Amino acid sequence: MALDHTSRQLIALALAEDIGPQDLTSALLPEDLVGEATVRAKDTLVLSGFEAVEAVFAAVDPRVEVRWANKEGDLVEPGAAVGSLRGPARSLLTGERLALNLLQRLCGVATMAHKAAQAVAGTKCKVVDTRKTTPAMRALQKAAVRHGGAYNHRFGLFDGVLIKDNHIAALGSITKAVERAREVAHHLVRVEVEVESLAQLDEALAAGADVVLLDNMDTATMRTAVQRTAGRALLEASGNVTLARLPEIAATGVDYVSMGALTHSAPSADIALDWGA
Amino acid sequence: MALDHTSRQLIALALAEDIGPQDLTSALLPEDLVGEATVRAKDTLVLSGFEAVEAVFAAVDPRVEVRWANKEGDLVEPGAAVGSLRGPARSLLTGERLALNLLQRLCGVATMAHKAAQAVAGTKCKVVDTRKTTPAMRALQKAAVRHGGAYNHRFGLFDGVLIKDNHIAALGSITKAVERAREVAHHLVRVEVEVESLAQLDEALAAGADVVLLDNMDTATMRTAVQRTAGRALLEASGNVTLARLPEIAATGVDYVSMGALTHSAPSADIALDWGA
Amino acid sequence: MALDHTSRQLIALALAEDIGPQDLTSALLPEDLVGEATVRAKDTLVLSGFEAVEAVFAAVDPRVEVRWANKEGDLVEPGAAVGSLRGPARSLLTGERLALNLLQRLCGVATMAHKAAQAVAGTKCKVVDTRKTTPAMRALQKAAVRHGGAYNHRFGLFDGVLIKDNHIAALGSITKAVERAREVAHHLVRVEVEVESLAQLDEALAAGADVVLLDNMDTATMRTAVQRTAGRALLEASGNVTLARLPEIAATGVDYVSMGALTHSAPSADIALDWGA
Amino acid sequence: MALDHTSRQLIALALAEDIGPQDLTSALLPEDLVGEATVRAKDTLVLSGFEAVEAVFAAVDPRVEVRWANKEGDLVEPGAAVGSLRGPARSLLTGERLALNLLQRLCGVATMAHKAAQAVAGTKCKVVDTRKTTPAMRALQKAAVRHGGAYNHRFGLFDGVLIKDNHIAALGSITKAVERAREVAHHLVRVEVEVESLAQLDEALAAGADVVLLDNMDTATMRTAVQRTAGRALLEASGNVTLARLPEIAATGVDYVSMGALTHSAPSADIALDWGA
Amino acid sequence: MALDHTSRQLIALALAEDIGPQDLTSALLPEDLVGEATVRAKDTLVLSGFEAVEAVFAAVDPRVEVRWANKEGDLVEPGAAVGSLRGPARSLLTGERLALNLLQRLCGVATMAHKAAQAVAGTKCKVVDTRKTTPAMRALQKAAVRHGGAYNHRFGLFDGVLIKDNHIAALGSITKAVERAREVAHHLVRVEVEVESLAQLDEALAAGADVVLLDNMDTATMRTAVQRTAGRALLEASGNVTLARLPEIAATGVDYVSMGALTHSAPSADIALDWGA
Amino acid sequence: MALDHTSRQLIALALAEDIGPQDLTSALLPEDLVGEATVRAKDTLVLSGFEAVEAVFAAVDPRVEVRWANKEGDLVEPGAAVGSLRGPARSLLTGERLALNLLQRLCGVATMAHKAAQAVAGTKCKVVDTRKTTPAMRALQKAAVRHGGAYNHRFGLFDGVLIKDNHIAALGSITKAVERAREVAHHLVRVEVEVESLAQLDEALAAGADVVLLDNMDTATMRTAVQRTAGRALLEASGNVTLARLPEIAATGVDYVSMGALTHSAPSADIALDWGA
Repeated sequence: MALDHTSRQLIALALAEDIGPQDLTSALLPEDLVGEATVRAKDTLVLSGFEAVEAVFAAVDPRVEVRWANKEGDLVEPGAAVGSLRGPARSLLTGERLALNLLQRLCGVATMAHKAAQAVAGTKCKVVDTRKTTPAMRALQKAAVRHGGAYNHRFGLFDGVLIKDNHIAALGSITKAVERAREVAHHLVRVEVEVESLAQLDEALAAGADVVLLDNMDTATMRTAVQRTAGRALLEASGNVTLARLPEIAATGVDYVSMGALTHSAPSADIALDWGA
Repeated sequence: MALDHTSRQLIALALAEDIGPQDLTSALLPEDLVGEATVRAKDTLVLSGFEAVEAVFAAVDPRVEVRWANKEGDLVEPGAAVGSLRGPARSLLTGERLALNLLQRLCGVATMAHKAAQAVAGTKCKVVDTRKTTPAMRALQKAAVRHGGAYNHRFGLFDGVLIKDNHIAALGSITKAVERAREVAHHLVRVEVEVESLAQLDEALAAGADVVLLDNMDTATMRTAVQRTAGRALLEASGNVTLARLPEIAATGVDYVSMGALTHSAPSADIALDWGA
Repeated sequence: MALDHTSRQLIALALAEDIGPQDLTSALLPEDLVGEATVRAKDTLVLSGFEAVEAVFAAVDPRVEVRWANKEGDLVEPGAAVGSLRGPARSLLTGERLALNLLQRLCGVATMAHKAAQAVAGTKCKVVDTRKTTPAMRALQKAAVRHGGAYNHRFGLFDGVLIKDNHIAALGSITKAVERAREVAHHLVRVEVEVESLAQLDEALAAGADVVLLDNMDTATMRTAVQRTAGRALLEASGNVTLARLPEIAATGVDYVSMGALTHSAPSADIALDWGA
Repeated sequence: MALDHTSRQLIALALAEDIGPQDLTSALLPEDLVGEATVRAKDTLVLSGFEAVEAVFAAVDPRVEVRWANKEGDLVEPGAAVGSLRGPARSLLTGERLALNLLQRLCGVATMAHKAAQAVAGTKCKVVDTRKTTPAMRALQKAAVRHGGAYNHRFGLFDGVLIKDNHIAALGSITKAVERAREVAHHLVRVEVEVESLAQLDEALAAGADVVLLDNMDTATMRTAVQRTAGRALLEASGNVTLARLPEIAATGVDYVSMGALTHSAPSADIALDWGA
Repeated sequence: MALDHTSRQLIALALAEDIGPQDLTSALLPEDLVGEATVRAKDTLVLSGFEAVEAVFAAVDPRVEVRWANKEGDLVEPGAAVGSLRGPARSLLTGERLALNLLQRLCGVATMAHKAAQAVAGTKCKVVDTRKTTPAMRALQKAAVRHGGAYNHRFGLFDGVLIKDNHIAALGSITKAVERAREVAHHLVRVEVEVESLAQLDEALAAGADVVLLDNMDTATMRTAVQRTAGRALLEASGNVTLARLPEIAATGVDYVSMGALTHSAPSADIALDWGA
Repeated sequence: MALDHTSRQLIALALAEDIGPQDLTSALLPEDLVGEATVRAKDTLVLSGFEAVEAVFAAVDPRVEVRWANKEGDLVEPGAAVGSLRGPARSLLTGERLALNLLQRLCGVATMAHKAAQAVAGTKCKVVDTRKTTPAMRALQKAAVRHGGAYNHRFGLFDGVLIKDNHIAALGSITKAVERAREVAHHLVRVEVEVESLAQLDEALAAGADVVLLDNMDTATMRTAVQRTAGRALLEASGNVTLARLPEIAATGVDYVSMGALTHSAPSADIALDWGA
């Protein structure tokens, strides 16, 4: 199975952006010079983005061979040689920057997801991502989240209903909003309602919401929400979640905690191409 | 002048990624409901990304009106209302997430560029960006760098020659590499050579490099490099540059300092859509 | 809100397919000749496809005005004038065929969906569509299903889990398949399992399936399935469903009945462009 | 020779439509599981659409092998194993639906074309298709018409002149319209004129039309038209042609009979993928 | 009616090629500076390419107004102001080069076509173009041929049958080739056969070719061919036709003479943008 | 390294333009017939365009083998067999025209570039191309210029600053324009200023222009310009440069002479496909 349609288009677009009509510097090298390079971790990190790297070099020059010493999801130590490239030196140099730009960002997401998953280990709570992803890189970032051991939320606006305050205001009440969602949405998607108070939670539960998003609640309120819900719906905590707060949130008994930082604030991982095998 | 071709394609791709066949939740709202929202800064930040936001809503629904209370490059305080949206509520909700994903990232870059520009203020040194940009978002990020008061390096592989160690190794010497670059590159691009030592600097200057990139040098060596060069070439410092190190680097007398962190590690700016005018 | 991305691309593709480099016959007409035409139903039918028709003429020539005397979902009688076109005669003739090809097929689907909805009226059972749609016309056909008063199933492979016999065989058992689906799928999609016997139904219910698809069961078995399930899961009947069989299926108490014929076998509706206002 | 440009784009569009970011259910299966399936006719049908099926699986996963036991145009009996698939089980399941959606529709067209060709066998009359095709599927449907033993009319608006009543009204007379067509159209396309009466036929023949389309005439009038034309032009009968009416139309001596139902009303053929070799 | 699909795509491609991420020089100008320019002929020429110029500026900046003082097909004298542009100066400068590259080439073709048409004036012979056009510019060049007063041959491989020596060799004889063409091609395209001798002409006529292409024949042989054909087929002369030879070819009585030079060797017309109204 | 993005898109567009839905004439040939053809020079010419030809046949049918007896840049004599094709006869015939249209135009450019390079041989002056290229064929034509032994100017509007009279007028003076260019443009592009007099040259040099374009100067003035510049900037002569004038221009001592005719007026080279090995 290849990359999804959007990821392939993103890579094509990004290559055209970087190469333009011609890589002026690679053109200095002899056409038949063969090069080798090692993909090396410079820090402790979790691996992700292999298919993206392969797609970059497949597009630049199908003669470039990409091999991996690890698999995605592996946690590697600084200095680890995680992969190798072999092929025309011109092509390695031309594809290098985009390959690294992708790999560093995706390993960064996977590594942060790994830390998040560690922070809730031993609880039933799952850390999930959000739609706060890098434009056109969502499928790649969501795979990185999974490689890190965390979980995905809905992919976009089309595979789940998530009713927020604006929808509620426009429709009159949570009850009416959920009712309308049941009418409009097909029977394989669930209906989630964002609530800001326990009173709203009660209304959402009564309306039959499948999932309730507890927005920006303190830990004590979350705990009460869990008790009051008593399994009638899945509960998701949300709102400026940090790695530091994860254990206490998980301890409240919520089923999910969503964390925008996984994709909008994961630091780029330090990973490089060292020339030579 | 509209956005460049790549930025427009990125936005189309990202919209399709997020909306898919249909926004299931917006569909709950009455079709004719009109909404208003305010773009509000939640922190001190420098503005960028206005054309991207406009392009998002133009694609979602041309009836959405976007107005700005500031201009790009402005530094605004927390709480500032920097813009407003008015149009069909469904369309505002459908475009909101991508608009914010772009705006937060681009204001983040502009804000970091602003800090970098401040850090070298009063010297002749310019902070420039690199090719370590987010895939397919380069033109937008480079504009953000300019909005923050920093400068751009070459756009891609096609509008400048930058000879690195691998090119030098493959071609035998700096001298031969520069010679070949003069033969291959057209006369409106300059030739830059990356050097790791003063000996290499001497060779690059003798070979007639237009620009020399001082890679990972300590401040003292940079200072010597500036003296030894004596204006025969432009000098650019590079290598894990942080905001903290900028003043001392600028004080060495180099002409440029390039900083990958501007685009690969700028934190997302805190900026939100508040509903209501 | 405009048409979704895929529908717009389909229309562009279909226009290029039909017009090629030039409409040789329209070229015979004077460039400034203005024409008028009426969209007229030639049979009893339910309307759908208005946005598609608008998109066709917007692409051919933005000067063509399209007006509708009805709204989508309306049931009209033979002879009804449901819309009108006015604009350059060349452009009306150039766009006519594609507009009709779309309109006839979409009104056909809406009309069949209407009959299906009538057949289950008074029961709680909803008729839903399937993925047996015309390639690249799914969003348009699913809207037509809704216009006719029936409902949509999942849109594609990405917004719901539907475990069929091949998945079960590959994974060892229904229990294992559902377990794995819970691990892999995000929490806003439901898990549906296709079963062929009451024994399989029992296993699916025990495994916690959200929805169970009763494949090719006779009416009596369906009735037993409804009793045995007792609300623990939603039930969907499926398998060569015809308009004639709908009432008895609905009477069994299943929640949904899916009907591929809605989109793969709906006859084209008889609708024409009559020239003149 | 590969598929034409439009057919390839349609398949790419339809795959993206169905798969979206990820096939959630296939993802349950082990990545290395290999599957086999047999393409089996469930009814008597004529085969068409092989290249489309191959293109679907080539796009989903080039490791899928597609083999055919028959060739396109073959008439097969219920139960016939007409082809087989072998490859990663995930990929077979992901591509299955689109492959069948195409195959069932195209075999449906070929089968109806076969019946039409049988109905005129023994006469010189050829059954031809029209532009009433499924959007963006014209090349595939026209090939199916040929596989069934019927013939193609012009492909689109660009490879033939077909003057209808609106053109005639706008240009003043059949004579003027044909004259203008001779001036405008290049010398490798013929000029066809649609007539509704014998008087119009006379005018068209006098004007030098290459082909005359007899629109909605009864059989007796057609017979007169054939006699009156006496070979001066090719004659094509048209207008709500059914399989039942074909023999009597063919017996009138017209050269062609065009039949929109071939592509707008051919029932989907019953053809399935049975898992296992 | 807008430009055809291919011409619009060519213009988008060519603009992206020229502008890339940013027009570095236009960026020097104030954003709000308004400019005016006059499109001026520098030589005697026939006008063509107006829609292409309009499409360039519509894509660069919809605020640019394009007005024409003449219409396509007009013959203008050196110094004539044939059109004017008004809009943001940056945008005028950005679009100028592509607009001129198109206009100069298209007026060049129209001007040569005009000379060719003049050369056969007073005879019934029409000068037609060939498929020797500039890649992706065929529709624009064919319109230019018409603007110059010459005529179009078939557009491409799909709207006419032209049997050449290789086809004949592969199929055994002209007779067999024509027979097979009648079977394969639809009834609105004609069949043309290329012949190199009078014997071949006889065979083509006997086989019922609609058009015969006399390849590289001398004038005397052409004249014999015309007599021998006696109206049984249309005759087209071809083979390194120059403006100088046109009158004698036309005098032989052939119906058409095709001239590749119209599109592959027409000199660029001298036409410029003069700044200021 | 494959062709750049734009060239590949141009070839896809041009193939679709020529083939449309189907090559009606190739379809006459047996599907399994294998053909061979020789690419033969009919005149003395310099070779270019090999990758474009390969890309055409790779797109039409990957089974076609293309072999070259020469390399690009070679000067060959009339009659030389420079390459050969082998593959399905249908596919050879389908791709032939576009392959030749590209090859003839590109060899034409290379041949003219060769003549230009010869004309300045023995001087330090380099002949360079301009942006007066065929839309979307710039990368291919610029490669052809290099194959002929001449040189490239900037590729487009994005990889160099070229200040012309309109920019100067808008900005007030050459001095201000150069100053602003230094502020706006990145440090790897040079700033070139177009001047029409020696006074302007003096201002440009004083402003620190890297390159000065001497527009439409006579040879004597150019010579003075060279003396007055004394190496402070690179000098480029421009303005209706012909092959005949090149030697005297080169003798003035200018560094570059740019010649639009290389790409807008190079005659198509005479090169053909002869069938048979």
